[in-house]
Amino acid sequence: MLRNPIKHCKNCGAAVVYRVPDDGDTKDRAICPACHTVHYENPLNVVGTVPYWGDKVLLCKRNIEPRWGKWTLPAGFMELNETVAEGAARETLEESGAQFELEGFFSLLNVARVGQVHMFYRARLLSDTFNPGFETIEARLFAEDEIPWDEIAFRTVKETLERYFADRRAGYFSIHAIDIV
Amino acid sequence: MLRNPIKHCKNCGAAVVYRVPDDGDTKDRAICPACHTVHYENPLNVVGTVPYWGDKVLLCKRNIEPRWGKWTLPAGFMELNETVAEGAARETLEESGAQFELEGFFSLLNVARVGQVHMFYRARLLSDTFNPGFETIEARLFAEDEIPWDEIAFRTVKETLERYFADRRAGYFSIHAIDIV
Repeated sequence: MLRNPIKHCKNCGAAVVYRVPDDGDTKDRAICPACHTVHYENPLNVVGTVPYWGDKVLLCKRNIEPRWGKWTLPAGFMELNETVAEGAARETLEESGAQFELEGFFSLLNVARVGQVHMFYRARLLSDTFNPGFETIEARLFAEDEIPWDEIAFRTVKETLERYFADRRAGYFSIHAIDIV
Repeated sequence: MLRNPIKHCKNCGAAVVYRVPDDGDTKDRAICPACHTVHYENPLNVVGTVPYWGDKVLLCKRNIEPRWGKWTLPAGFMELNETVAEGAARETLEESGAQFELEGFFSLLNVARVGQVHMFYRARLLSDTFNPGFETIEARLFAEDEIPWDEIAFRTVKETLERYFADRRAGYFSIHAIDIV
């Protein structure tokens, strides 16, 4: 996701200027010359799950851009007034309509290039029937040797899936911190 | 941190209206009636470290609001173009001037009420002399029984310190996911 630059003050609508604030900050910020509001831009969290059913994981075929038609783990932007776990559960429900129980925190992936942090929990599916929302063309279970590796929508999803299956083979789940460069 | 509501479009400066977008979204967003930009508001990440020297941890006495004069672990808002670890290291350097080596991911704390996620790494101090920046009145090492528990600036810091000393006594460090309610 590329961000559009801030051009106007969100408080009063005046055109902003970019400069280092006078408060000891060291970075250029969008500053309003009229009402003096300083506008910060910060990373966004993308939160989701690895939903599993026996030795299979649930992937969703995207019905939205970017990466329409590619496969992803259920995930999306974290909202205000929710925890990482609540956001991960909400996105899983919205994108797959699955019934599940959230388990442990699993992966933390930095995508500094686009200012994002992706976080995934493991989720134990309680049923193998799904009811995906409008963002998903199809929700389907895949064993490791069935995963469409060349059709995975995002690097963070691919890296998370690889760790998930490796941990599963090893017999225990770790927490993984990964930098996507 | 309380957020000021978005009143004007950051793209064109027109006054926004709050409504649910027409794209399948379910939440009210600030929408520009002139250029149709949808403005999302998302949680902010606060990143920092638990810097330790033997059985002591480094705390910083805040020289800025909020909580001026209270003690904190070095931490601050994550910036664009950095990883969680890089942000945690940057804040530690800025607020304490310590020399250190970053170790494992330690705590993930949800403060949903204010739309924040706090994340701490452990950091092994390489020296017990510090050179704090303008945001810090004093940087000082504390053993567990010296911690000024009633003068800790933030709940997330108190919870992280409690887990850190408990894990240290247990002889191994886990990763902790905590909801601050």
